[in-house]
Amino acid sequence: MIQNLAVLQARAQAAVPPANATAEPHVFVILGATGDLTGRKLLPSLFSLSQEGHLGDQGFILGTAVDATLDDDGFRARCRDWLAADGVNVDDRVQQWLKERLFYQPMRTGGTEDFRTLGTRLAALEKGQQLPSNRVFYLALPSDVFPIAITQLGEVGLSKSSGWTRLVIEKPFGHDLASAQQLNALVHKYFDEAQVYRIDHYLGKETVRNFLVFRFANSLFEPLWNRDRVERVEFTVAETLGVEHRAGYYEHAGALRDMVQNHLTQLLTLTAMDVPAPMEASAIWDEKVKVLRSILPIRPENVVFGQYTRGQIDGTTLPGYREEPGVARDSTIETFAAIRLDIATWRWQGVPFLLRTGKRLARRVSQVVITFRCPPVGIFRPMVSASIHPNVLVITIQPDEGFDLHFEMKAPGQSVAVETRSLHFRYSEAFGPLPEAYETLLLDVVLGDSTLFVRDDWVEASWKLYAPLLENRPRVLPYAAGTWGPAEADSLLKELECGWTTP
Amino acid sequence: MIQNLAVLQARAQAAVPPANATAEPHVFVILGATGDLTGRKLLPSLFSLSQEGHLGDQGFILGTAVDATLDDDGFRARCRDWLAADGVNVDDRVQQWLKERLFYQPMRTGGTEDFRTLGTRLAALEKGQQLPSNRVFYLALPSDVFPIAITQLGEVGLSKSSGWTRLVIEKPFGHDLASAQQLNALVHKYFDEAQVYRIDHYLGKETVRNFLVFRFANSLFEPLWNRDRVERVEFTVAETLGVEHRAGYYEHAGALRDMVQNHLTQLLTLTAMDVPAPMEASAIWDEKVKVLRSILPIRPENVVFGQYTRGQIDGTTLPGYREEPGVARDSTIETFAAIRLDIATWRWQGVPFLLRTGKRLARRVSQVVITFRCPPVGIFRPMVSASIHPNVLVITIQPDEGFDLHFEMKAPGQSVAVETRSLHFRYSEAFGPLPEAYETLLLDVVLGDSTLFVRDDWVEASWKLYAPLLENRPRVLPYAAGTWGPAEADSLLKELECGWTTP
Repeated sequence: MIQNLAVLQARAQAAVPPANATAEPHVFVILGATGDLTGRKLLPSLFSLSQEGHLGDQGFILGTAVDATLDDDGFRARCRDWLAADGVNVDDRVQQWLKERLFYQPMRTGGTEDFRTLGTRLAALEKGQQLPSNRVFYLALPSDVFPIAITQLGEVGLSKSSGWTRLVIEKPFGHDLASAQQLNALVHKYFDEAQVYRIDHYLGKETVRNFLVFRFANSLFEPLWNRDRVERVEFTVAETLGVEHRAGYYEHAGALRDMVQNHLTQLLTLTAMDVPAPMEASAIWDEKVKVLRSILPIRPENVVFGQYTRGQIDGTTLPGYREEPGVARDSTIETFAAIRLDIATWRWQGVPFLLRTGKRLARRVSQVVITFRCPPVGIFRPMVSASIHPNVLVITIQPDEGFDLHFEMKAPGQSVAVETRSLHFRYSEAFGPLPEAYETLLLDVVLGDSTLFVRDDWVEASWKLYAPLLENRPRVLPYAAGTWGPAEADSLLKELECGWTTP
Repeated sequence: MIQNLAVLQARAQAAVPPANATAEPHVFVILGATGDLTGRKLLPSLFSLSQEGHLGDQGFILGTAVDATLDDDGFRARCRDWLAADGVNVDDRVQQWLKERLFYQPMRTGGTEDFRTLGTRLAALEKGQQLPSNRVFYLALPSDVFPIAITQLGEVGLSKSSGWTRLVIEKPFGHDLASAQQLNALVHKYFDEAQVYRIDHYLGKETVRNFLVFRFANSLFEPLWNRDRVERVEFTVAETLGVEHRAGYYEHAGALRDMVQNHLTQLLTLTAMDVPAPMEASAIWDEKVKVLRSILPIRPENVVFGQYTRGQIDGTTLPGYREEPGVARDSTIETFAAIRLDIATWRWQGVPFLLRTGKRLARRVSQVVITFRCPPVGIFRPMVSASIHPNVLVITIQPDEGFDLHFEMKAPGQSVAVETRSLHFRYSEAFGPLPEAYETLLLDVVLGDSTLFVRDDWVEASWKLYAPLLENRPRVLPYAAGTWGPAEADSLLKELECGWTTP
């Protein structure tokens, strides 16, 4: 017991657990255990973490869902099929793991009685395994039932325990400022903010996780990371996919809610934030929120919305958004958004921060592109006839995580011809295959590291920033599938006399 | 004629000729045309430049040497053999080139009469080919006959012509301050400094030629290139060879004269110089000389001299320096020198500049290593247990020209383990085989670009800097062949609590 206390104190001091950390004994409760997310992401990740020893000898999974026909063995059979579909060779050892670690508690309607029964089952499981009541509740549910699930958990007393209790919520965290505030208020009615883990899976990507180390463990970058040295910063999350089977959701969401308010704005705050001190979750989120609060109100001329029309990608003709099944023939939902933000801080005043996302664009890629100011090239005029290009740092999050640094060199030979060359780094080349973002994030949850989980005030500040665009929706301009969006998007960079950097 | 004037004016405005520049009609006179340097370097380089069209239709070579048995055809035959030895396929076209472009004027004693005859022959050649008396005199001679050759050229009136006349001198430019001043005074008796091209072949290396572009065409580096950001700068020119057959020279030279005063100090001034404006030869040399004049007098405790003793490289046992043929058994000549310099400028005050060279060291390598200051890593303490390493920029001049940038990354996975990784650039990978340093430099001579040729005041300032070490020679410490020199060399970095960076 004294030993446990020492461990807890040590953990409380360390913002992040040490290498090869192992979780304390716990039960990982998945609400919505029969759904797609559980099968594709949660179960394979938890299995993998368990195999690597990260979950310890006493990490259990308790699934629950409104499927009263299922029992422990039925759930295990379903999980076995999911693992097999994920490429796991389901041998005796895996069967044994399923039998020892997985349990299922059916619900009938998701009412209070069901949650009370869940609590009873959980307590029984913990008693049987002699566990200290450390619990994760993962809401693998449609967002419209988040409020019900949170209320029920709270009302039946499952938001607290004699150990630790953590609540994991998937995005979307609201669909506007008011709904986000409402959701947060409800969460806080039962849970402390420190118990809440809001997942934005972009933050689990290796490049994003490395961002803080990259920026602050290298003395090269910090002196360059400001208005004196940076000309512009571009954030692109481009998809080649169209709306696919998600029209029902997308017709009420659009690119701003689907990509900008969360993923792109996360990348923005990571890139623009000041140095947190110390390097721990609360200080990091303080700095990120500061960035959001420093952004000037978005001016209408700094926003371009678009919607894809019929076009070609790789020689295949693709339908326009309004021709997609489930989409209104006169839909004005944006499938493309480009927004210029101005951050009024000592570090960034005057440097355009440009966000861009879209479906059916020319290439699938997620990048942060930092273009540095040109040196005073007048000094080279007598030597170099061709123009000198600015240094550019490209941080790629998808599809091949890594970065490239473009710089100027003298080409070998007699003349002083300057050419742009690139230093190249890819995680997979340096380190081999990367862990799944979900795997990383789930381990952080069971270890209690909230660095990569979105904080309540960040969510609200982000919705607040984009609220005017949700209230007065910009006109949606057409763009052909397979392009980089409406040509008008370049107008956001017109003062720089350039267009967006083509990935 | 008016057109020629326009060309001349354009050239005068341009410090460096444009890409694919072609030399004006000229005669390239090699004094010492039968020697090793001509056969190994000058002739192959001129041939190659000619084949690439850089020398134009009227670039001729006139060899001369104290070998009265040789005539035009004899010289051409010798040159044919040299080219063949260099790997050139000597076909009819090459034979034709030799016959059209190469001439030889024998000397009997190298006296005034010989030089007068040389002048007559030159004038006849120019008249026959209708050339405008543009002349290069290349002293491919032992340094002790430089004064005679320069005097003779001047006395017979060959230091001026109706076109341009250029004098090319190989190092060494003196063996101390007094002799360098004497040599410069003699040169200036007959030639303007603008006519003089002092060759340090290190300056023809691509990495060195790229230095100015690398530093000043990339906005990334200049903000980092100062005492606030740089902890130390190390310059290493390491050889695995011993004294070989050069004991006669080396016993009077030593490492300080052979490597430090010229090559290493060139690298130092290129690295430490301020931004020249405009980017032209005179401004560049002004800045380099400023660096030399800003270096504080060298303190005795900042110098370590060494001499190799018996040791092993790659499993082969090698004799000590004093065991080498031609070396005195009690020689106190240094085969290793390590020197710490302090540059008292706004940019560099307090940053150690460390020069190191030696024979029979562990590896053949020439590098500039710039170690940046560590970031304030205290901020990472809660996250990272292991220490954070400083960013290091390694510029390699030999054997594989290029550079590496070492930086810190988060290793993928759950913990925040920081690892050092490296961005890698090699000229040969980016651009294919590089031109020979000599080729580049010879073209610069015929084009009239003096950027890469050592200026008189630089030579004298450099000798002046090291004069105290030549007058009061430091004690020579033994080091075993195959090591990185005497262990005492690390004492130069003791305040930084580190040793030299091992290449």
